[in-house]
Amino acid sequence: MKYIESKKNEDIKQINKLSSTKYIKKTGTYLIEGFHLIQEADANDQEFVKLLVTEKQENDRLAKKYRDIAVGISDDIAESLSETKTPQGIFAVIKVQNTEPLTDMHGQWVILDDVQDPGNVGTIVRTADAAGYAGVITSLNSADFYQPKVQRSMQGSQFHLPIYRMDMQDVLKLAKKSGLKVYGSEVNDRALPYKKLENSEDFALVMGNEAHGLSKEVLVQMDENIYIPILGKAESLNVAVAAGILMYGLKAI
Amino acid sequence: MKYIESKKNEDIKQINKLSSTKYIKKTGTYLIEGFHLIQEADANDQEFVKLLVTEKQENDRLAKKYRDIAVGISDDIAESLSETKTPQGIFAVIKVQNTEPLTDMHGQWVILDDVQDPGNVGTIVRTADAAGYAGVITSLNSADFYQPKVQRSMQGSQFHLPIYRMDMQDVLKLAKKSGLKVYGSEVNDRALPYKKLENSEDFALVMGNEAHGLSKEVLVQMDENIYIPILGKAESLNVAVAAGILMYGLKAI
Repeated sequence: MKYIESKKNEDIKQINKLSSTKYIKKTGTYLIEGFHLIQEADANDQEFVKLLVTEKQENDRLAKKYRDIAVGISDDIAESLSETKTPQGIFAVIKVQNTEPLTDMHGQWVILDDVQDPGNVGTIVRTADAAGYAGVITSLNSADFYQPKVQRSMQGSQFHLPIYRMDMQDVLKLAKKSGLKVYGSEVNDRALPYKKLENSEDFALVMGNEAHGLSKEVLVQMDENIYIPILGKAESLNVAVAAGILMYGLKAI
Repeated sequence: MKYIESKKNEDIKQINKLSSTKYIKKTGTYLIEGFHLIQEADANDQEFVKLLVTEKQENDRLAKKYRDIAVGISDDIAESLSETKTPQGIFAVIKVQNTEPLTDMHGQWVILDDVQDPGNVGTIVRTADAAGYAGVITSLNSADFYQPKVQRSMQGSQFHLPIYRMDMQDVLKLAKKSGLKVYGSEVNDRALPYKKLENSEDFALVMGNEAHGLSKEVLVQMDENIYIPILGKAESLNVAVAAGILMYGLKAI
């Protein structure tokens, strides 16, 4: 196994750049960390580009399985790559998913229209996974799925359901062509309390930006606007919480 | 109006310390920022200790109303106190709430057993406000309500409903004495899917720690354990999302 000791090594420098969305896009790869996540990636057939292990993990099952692309790193390097205070000493560079364009939609989807907080996007993917949704699609101005803060909130759910980044007009056209109803979460005069909506097998739930909600161009294309009644004095709900309430609320369970 | 120009001024040094939980506890006061939050605090009868305004806010209605405790500050000081990139130039030091012990509970409450992420605690308070709950109580090991990150997520909901920090055994005793049913969110063999629970007017919903869930001592005292069915492959939900799903799910709306 090749062994790298210096943080100034060219490979390590490149891997460090994977904390930036721009570089993730350029390379089509991202960095994941820790046994749990790497085991999940392996179990869910993700494409590994590189595996990095410190000395104490060199004999791990994964290090053996991926020996052809495994590289030894010093504890110092592990600390510099890690998002945690006590790194487990195992990292992987893997390929981003779903490079094939989406051509058909079935079941229940979540679509995010410019949701910009990384924690919100990641938490919504995790909740969509838990609630058994078919997949999550974000607009081009939403937070990128693969940046470290989104990853932290997804907790590996990106390996369980497809996630796409698409132009909003394209995804709405595709949803309608595929026969899905589209429900926009927005408080307005015509909106329906979500518990009044009839359960449906195939639909897309569209959530809007944290500050501005759904854009007008999106709103006019909705089959139904739905809202969560505010029973107290708060002005609104956090979008990830609202998405969770709606995802489970619209399920016939 | 007194005017402070130096960051090294003793008052400013003290106010800067209000970003620490320890100092908030010691003084019984905390710092809030921006027109929206300060107007909400004013409209909801919070006790103001100090108002700090930059020159351009000196003639604001609030600066006039609180002229006896208002102090002018430089833009530099405003930047040093602010949690935002573009400070509005208005800050207030106000008293923490609910120093009177809680002696009776009615309606629907949320109780947090060692929820430690500040964003989760704050978001749960905001959701409890939106869902019309009577109040939120945290255990002594939960994130403190008044630290800046919790405040940011509460978005002023602390002015709309009572929030308490109490010993868990005391709060559970009080809830039972007050005639509330206590429902613990926990996946186990005897737990009930939350949609099967009959709607009830008076109850306390108890949520556990992010990693460990409810503690054993708490769990044995629950009238009912409830859970949110996981329909996909995620292992769990974020606790603030789970609390939101349950808070709305248990409402007869």
